[in-house]
Amino acid sequence: MTQFSFSLAAGSGKARTGTISTPRGQIRTPAFMPVGTAATVKGMMPESVAETGADILLGNTYHLMLRPGAERIDRLGGLHRFMNWEKPILTDSGGFQVMSLAGLRKLTEDGVTFKSHIDGSRHELTPERSMEIQRLLGSDIVMAFDECPALPVPKERIAASMQLSMRWAARSREAFGDRPGHALFGIQQGGLEPDLREESAKALTDIGFEGYAIGGLAVGEGQEAMFGCLDTAPDMLPEDKPRYLMGVGKPDDIVGAVKRGVDMMDCVLPSRSGRTGQAWTRRGQVNLKNARHQDDPRPLEEGCTCPACRNYSRAYLHHVFRSNEMISGMLLTWHNLHYYQLLMSEMRAAIADDTFAAFEEKFHATRALGDVERI
Amino acid sequence: MTQFSFSLAAGSGKARTGTISTPRGQIRTPAFMPVGTAATVKGMMPESVAETGADILLGNTYHLMLRPGAERIDRLGGLHRFMNWEKPILTDSGGFQVMSLAGLRKLTEDGVTFKSHIDGSRHELTPERSMEIQRLLGSDIVMAFDECPALPVPKERIAASMQLSMRWAARSREAFGDRPGHALFGIQQGGLEPDLREESAKALTDIGFEGYAIGGLAVGEGQEAMFGCLDTAPDMLPEDKPRYLMGVGKPDDIVGAVKRGVDMMDCVLPSRSGRTGQAWTRRGQVNLKNARHQDDPRPLEEGCTCPACRNYSRAYLHHVFRSNEMISGMLLTWHNLHYYQLLMSEMRAAIADDTFAAFEEKFHATRALGDVERI
Repeated sequence: MTQFSFSLAAGSGKARTGTISTPRGQIRTPAFMPVGTAATVKGMMPESVAETGADILLGNTYHLMLRPGAERIDRLGGLHRFMNWEKPILTDSGGFQVMSLAGLRKLTEDGVTFKSHIDGSRHELTPERSMEIQRLLGSDIVMAFDECPALPVPKERIAASMQLSMRWAARSREAFGDRPGHALFGIQQGGLEPDLREESAKALTDIGFEGYAIGGLAVGEGQEAMFGCLDTAPDMLPEDKPRYLMGVGKPDDIVGAVKRGVDMMDCVLPSRSGRTGQAWTRRGQVNLKNARHQDDPRPLEEGCTCPACRNYSRAYLHHVFRSNEMISGMLLTWHNLHYYQLLMSEMRAAIADDTFAAFEEKFHATRALGDVERI
Repeated sequence: MTQFSFSLAAGSGKARTGTISTPRGQIRTPAFMPVGTAATVKGMMPESVAETGADILLGNTYHLMLRPGAERIDRLGGLHRFMNWEKPILTDSGGFQVMSLAGLRKLTEDGVTFKSHIDGSRHELTPERSMEIQRLLGSDIVMAFDECPALPVPKERIAASMQLSMRWAARSREAFGDRPGHALFGIQQGGLEPDLREESAKALTDIGFEGYAIGGLAVGEGQEAMFGCLDTAPDMLPEDKPRYLMGVGKPDDIVGAVKRGVDMMDCVLPSRSGRTGQAWTRRGQVNLKNARHQDDPRPLEEGCTCPACRNYSRAYLHHVFRSNEMISGMLLTWHNLHYYQLLMSEMRAAIADDTFAAFEEKFHATRALGDVERI
């Protein structure tokens, strides 16, 4: 059986390209992971998600444990079979979404108890239970259970929270056990404080993980502050393991993160935007809701090979959005995921050629043009 | 250029099978036409609709004239190009939906004025304007503009309304003009009154159409009354032209209509049901919303080759419906349209073999079994 492994093939500045190998297939890095929260990438058939070039999906432990339930998914053969996705799946630990979605939380050294946002039922998550749930789901890449306060909070709170997360990381490692072909990733915390990030990286490295995530960013601190943190945070993590920036982001966030040595990212943005009439293109964001598109026979993005651009006009995309038709979200989500994967593929090629700086310059220059002129 | 034509290949009892030829492709009859109201079959990519076996779609004049507008669709290259559907399209005349959807209608000999249900704007439909709109849309099969009262009403109302529709049918024929490769269908009215149906059929046949629809049924009269009418109504229409029963129906309505000599049907039911968690199978209706499915690893329908049945369990279909996920409507609509087209294909084969009675018996016997036992 293939073991979980990571090999770097090339670098360009701090940007890296390589391959994560798992028994369920290879993940080309830098990799963007579409989010399949409740066992579906909203508005997409899984075959279509694969067609956009995605090598791996993210599933949400918090949502799946509440509905349909981890034990149920296990009885049904695991998450891959349940949602008809044979390639790798990464699951988060549930910690972040308990904090952002659940009601009436109570945090202790042991873990967190909370009420479901769906039906108010009471649940508990601990490092041990999070590992169990992610095992029941059949996740290929399991995330350590962590905690992070919403910023801004005093540095002492950030430090205490990070240190709790490090104790939970050790318990996660212990509870994960020996699972050949599966990986456990630790999560660096420490807010925007370099010394706390350093302390967290050291604690995680001492425990030892198959990969390392950078947590606690993209939570409202702004791109400048995030990039400031990313100027040093990835370098604190082992060079020979994948580095995963959680919950990022917009296309320019992604390019800036890859430039700083990040290998993996995930974000709901391409699918969420798609459902609200927003498209991401090389020339920036396009709002299909706008009446300027109602008579426009041109494709959303010239040269794009996704079904939305190949087969439809902007006028059609405007019409179906305004008519509240399902195909609006279906087509725009497809386009957005296609664009995101194209961006990753172009970055991987530029890193392999050691021309990442030129790629980045062109990326920003094209965006600066803005959308095509109104017809 | 191929002209519009119809050829009958075989019959079994009163049931008929044949082929309608148009410049945009052939339509195998009996044919079921999925409904693409606002230039999309809700929840489906058009490629997927074609994959279910549909040879033709129905578009709604009323909806399209209001949004995005017939002149706009014409400027954008016509409805086929707009919605990425290259095969034939039939459009209704708008008359029926003005009656069922629009507010503040005013009916005169000339036509009908009404307020849009979308924005309250004022519009007019006459036989001449309906023909113009359907020409602008690029419809392959155009329906004459008609009017029909909601039942029950006194016979005099039904007669007066039918006679008005016949005068409008003549004006529709005149306004349609000479359009090689396109067809105009007249619509028989007369409620449940055989003598009025006969009078209507004679008026239409005197005018002369490329096909004949049976209108004013499936409006709440019940299956027994509808079949009673269909025991004679199709026979009043020319044998060598397609007969189209508008707005029908459930699978057993469709089988009963084909048995009585109907060649074409349309209905929103398969797509509308799909969006509310209802599936149609050989063994009848299945409600995926029901908790009995939550742990069921079996496919919705054993042996069905649609993506919903090939790739997912009932447990998954239940989960995504309960989670209000788009893929629920996408998968169930696909299944339902697949099942409807399979039914048509089996009926065509049974008619060709002159075994329609045996087909019908088996159809009802399988439905009588009901859904598979709870697991």
